[in-house]
Amino acid sequence: MRSVNSVHIVKQSWTERTEVPDLLAIEEPLEIRIGFGSISDRHQRSLSVTMRTPGHDFELASGFLFTEGIIQHFDQIESIKYCEDVGKQEEKENVVRVELKPEVKIDFEKLQRHFYTSSSCGVCGKSSIDSVRVVCQKIEDQFSMSASVIHQLPDALQKAQKVFEYTGGLHAVGLFNNKGELILLREDVGRHNALDKVIGVVLFKKEVPLSNYILLVSGRASFELVQKAAVAGIPVLAAVGAPSSLAVDLAKEFGMTLLGFVRDQRFNIYCGEQRITSIG
Amino acid sequence: MRSVNSVHIVKQSWTERTEVPDLLAIEEPLEIRIGFGSISDRHQRSLSVTMRTPGHDFELASGFLFTEGIIQHFDQIESIKYCEDVGKQEEKENVVRVELKPEVKIDFEKLQRHFYTSSSCGVCGKSSIDSVRVVCQKIEDQFSMSASVIHQLPDALQKAQKVFEYTGGLHAVGLFNNKGELILLREDVGRHNALDKVIGVVLFKKEVPLSNYILLVSGRASFELVQKAAVAGIPVLAAVGAPSSLAVDLAKEFGMTLLGFVRDQRFNIYCGEQRITSIG
Repeated sequence: MRSVNSVHIVKQSWTERTEVPDLLAIEEPLEIRIGFGSISDRHQRSLSVTMRTPGHDFELASGFLFTEGIIQHFDQIESIKYCEDVGKQEEKENVVRVELKPEVKIDFEKLQRHFYTSSSCGVCGKSSIDSVRVVCQKIEDQFSMSASVIHQLPDALQKAQKVFEYTGGLHAVGLFNNKGELILLREDVGRHNALDKVIGVVLFKKEVPLSNYILLVSGRASFELVQKAAVAGIPVLAAVGAPSSLAVDLAKEFGMTLLGFVRDQRFNIYCGEQRITSIG
Repeated sequence: MRSVNSVHIVKQSWTERTEVPDLLAIEEPLEIRIGFGSISDRHQRSLSVTMRTPGHDFELASGFLFTEGIIQHFDQIESIKYCEDVGKQEEKENVVRVELKPEVKIDFEKLQRHFYTSSSCGVCGKSSIDSVRVVCQKIEDQFSMSASVIHQLPDALQKAQKVFEYTGGLHAVGLFNNKGELILLREDVGRHNALDKVIGVVLFKKEVPLSNYILLVSGRASFELVQKAAVAGIPVLAAVGAPSSLAVDLAKEFGMTLLGFVRDQRFNIYCGEQRITSIG
């Protein structure tokens, strides 16, 4: 699956207008459906539609189920596939069905509250904070990392980004160890999707919680990103952009370290500074 | 209502660590409920929860109802208020109830499809495109604007942004006329909210469709922003960042002009170049 499209555009400078080839980040809807219930009484339910960049859809779907607290282990997934019974040909790869094991219990009333009509980011504010509290343990303190290593992460992320440099239209999320080595990179038009894709991969490998890693996101740190990182047990979330007030509140609550404006050899520590050592 | 919070943070440079005061963009959930039905049989329904920056909530709510095709005129709104029957004190200003006139017909089945469990941006991809097609007319061609005026818009937007310069955490949406004069500016942690706030104001003044204006957004142009602008009849959408593939597809379909990377005295025209004149 492609993540960029070739197009022809018109470039306008102060005086000149020229037609040139260009690349666009692809944005398409992905519907996530779950199959659940006993073998004799099997149901399907549409859980979420997210605008995403195609690719790594199975990781995205399973990462989403995990970071939203619907599953706690990869073993709870029976199978993942693209839906066959979708009407139009072009939508075939835009619907993923995740079959859950019969024993997985789903609280649909809570889910309804949690997801119903969320217009910005898959979360329902207060009710979502409440729901995360259930599945999310306070993050432990043993991880630490030197400031000098953190200064190097934005460059490492940017070098690893293939699509971004062409289109400027994709967000990136990178998972690093405390030596500053990039373990995993995912890109998407939506930051939360890029993060779910990263966590989905780790879930496949059964390596959650991610107690020994730092996450760098290319944009801002929202409430939702902190929440998803917390569910995966990530001790440090670093953003190239600014955090929101609720992102900081939530990070404090979970005992997470939150860094913002990580660029140009400096960064801000909003909470959890005990994990950042000054001399590398 | 405030849009920024004062906090204390730790600034880390290559060698130094200092504690300083800082400002954070506020992010809080806003639940939009609608009241509908005949006087003898009145109902309430939760329609959407969006993570937003507090302020201009009534504009946000009515702009949202309009850009999502639930209402077509301001006159269809009976009243807007903060909900009284909300449990906790701190949530009181996070729930808005819009009372619709009894004669407003709502297709809940379509809405359910449209909104149900949308995790990224209030849209359900294909089904949403279909639903927009109903309420959205093709945009007419009479508007035009000179490239030299467009070059000046990013500076004008930035100068008008009060919060952004402090926190770097807010998106801005500015509405300009074709002389480059800023008519209206709104900021929010979510771009779509900033846009709904702008459109809500115009709706209050009964000035939609906005056939004689250009919209400049501080970030990227997504499918959703194009859709909302199209519903409001805006002929030119300009973004400081990149557009997505679906944003371009949709803009073409609606006959809208879409500009990207509008900065540093240049921009890209993705479609609708007939509205942009080279000599000002």
